[in-house]
Amino acid sequence: MTLNRSSLQVRERLLALIKSGEWREDGQLPTERSLSERFDVGRRHVRQALDALEEEGLVWRRQGKGTFIGQPADPMGDLAAKITGETNTLEVMEARLCIEPELAALCATRMLPEEIARLRHLAQRQFEAGDAQATELWDGALHRLIAQCARNRPLLTAYALLDKIRSNPDWVAIRAKARDGASLAVTHSEHLAIVDAIALGHAAAARHAMRDHLETRFRALEGEIGHAATAEGKTFFTVGTEI
Amino acid sequence: MTLNRSSLQVRERLLALIKSGEWREDGQLPTERSLSERFDVGRRHVRQALDALEEEGLVWRRQGKGTFIGQPADPMGDLAAKITGETNTLEVMEARLCIEPELAALCATRMLPEEIARLRHLAQRQFEAGDAQATELWDGALHRLIAQCARNRPLLTAYALLDKIRSNPDWVAIRAKARDGASLAVTHSEHLAIVDAIALGHAAAARHAMRDHLETRFRALEGEIGHAATAEGKTFFTVGTEI
Repeated sequence: MTLNRSSLQVRERLLALIKSGEWREDGQLPTERSLSERFDVGRRHVRQALDALEEEGLVWRRQGKGTFIGQPADPMGDLAAKITGETNTLEVMEARLCIEPELAALCATRMLPEEIARLRHLAQRQFEAGDAQATELWDGALHRLIAQCARNRPLLTAYALLDKIRSNPDWVAIRAKARDGASLAVTHSEHLAIVDAIALGHAAAARHAMRDHLETRFRALEGEIGHAATAEGKTFFTVGTEI
Repeated sequence: MTLNRSSLQVRERLLALIKSGEWREDGQLPTERSLSERFDVGRRHVRQALDALEEEGLVWRRQGKGTFIGQPADPMGDLAAKITGETNTLEVMEARLCIEPELAALCATRMLPEEIARLRHLAQRQFEAGDAQATELWDGALHRLIAQCARNRPLLTAYALLDKIRSNPDWVAIRAKARDGASLAVTHSEHLAIVDAIALGHAAAARHAMRDHLETRFRALEGEIGHAATAEGKTFFTVGTEI
């Protein structure tokens, strides 16, 4: 964002105000109107200066509440950090097997045509990704779009929580190790099966395709983690599977 | 907790220290050792005084980190509050139908005998509860114990999040309205079916029994909420149901 001279001056004065520590205990800045009077400039300049500070991550706005210094607390991040130390890859796999097939089923009933096109695009990008980092990135984007298109806020939150726990660098490295050329081809065909079922609006087929895909991935991961799920008496593969 | 005179004195001095504002920015108190030196008393008295303050909710301890003033932030509570405004009863029902049948299935494979006895006890208390508040309380306790005994931390968190969203007073009132004598008897027999399947260690039967139970409750609720799920184009009852 380029600011004109007045807005730049307001930005400098706001920075000084932030540094002075002269604000409310909760980090809230004075209103735009009161800042405009204090600095004797138009509200437009105040707003532009605040926009610039927001872009820089120095302040944030809460709808209807005002402008605050710093960044909003991230309860999702706090919660994920808390859980990461109390869980393991096996539990997270189990949780994914519980949630993601249902997300795919809901997605199949609520998807818009342009979203199907985006899903196909992501599946292709994942297949063509040249390295482990890019593969992980596009794979994550595909699964996340399915979760979003299920249009259920609490389930999306549960998914996002798992996604955040899984972003742990140690786990990312394990996943990268469990992939090879052959498994990438299998993943691609499984992704296409999921997207096709979703495109047809067939909830049960989408659920099964997602379950098959996750079970394939988890078998590969299990080998990599090198501990049999059954050793802990956990009936890992029966989760989400009709007996 | 009863404190001896030395510990009581330490408690008073700690309170004065807290009020003085003389502590680190993050609210962390000095270590027990440094407080012990500062007040010239044994560490035992410092520890007892801190225990008392912790019981009163004035300080809290983080394992391996130290003692902090106030109460720990509750990321779960923050997240639930954030989601509550962005979701509705229908979505929460859908999310329960996704998660709770799997929790019941996992529970069936991991339950200990004493936990089965506790489940039966809770089912009985729910049945005998005299008013709406007690019914809600025992019902919540039963479902929560099943979630806990599934022994999956991320899924328990997802369940707890739904539970917290559901504790919204408006929703509690709707649920109370949707109950009558006949529906309480049905709920009781459904609860017993779930507990019996869990006691037999039969995952698939536990999953189905929980699904049946939730679908019965949601049909009653749907009537009370007075809007047909299909009116929004949502295929509510196909969630978690094999077609």
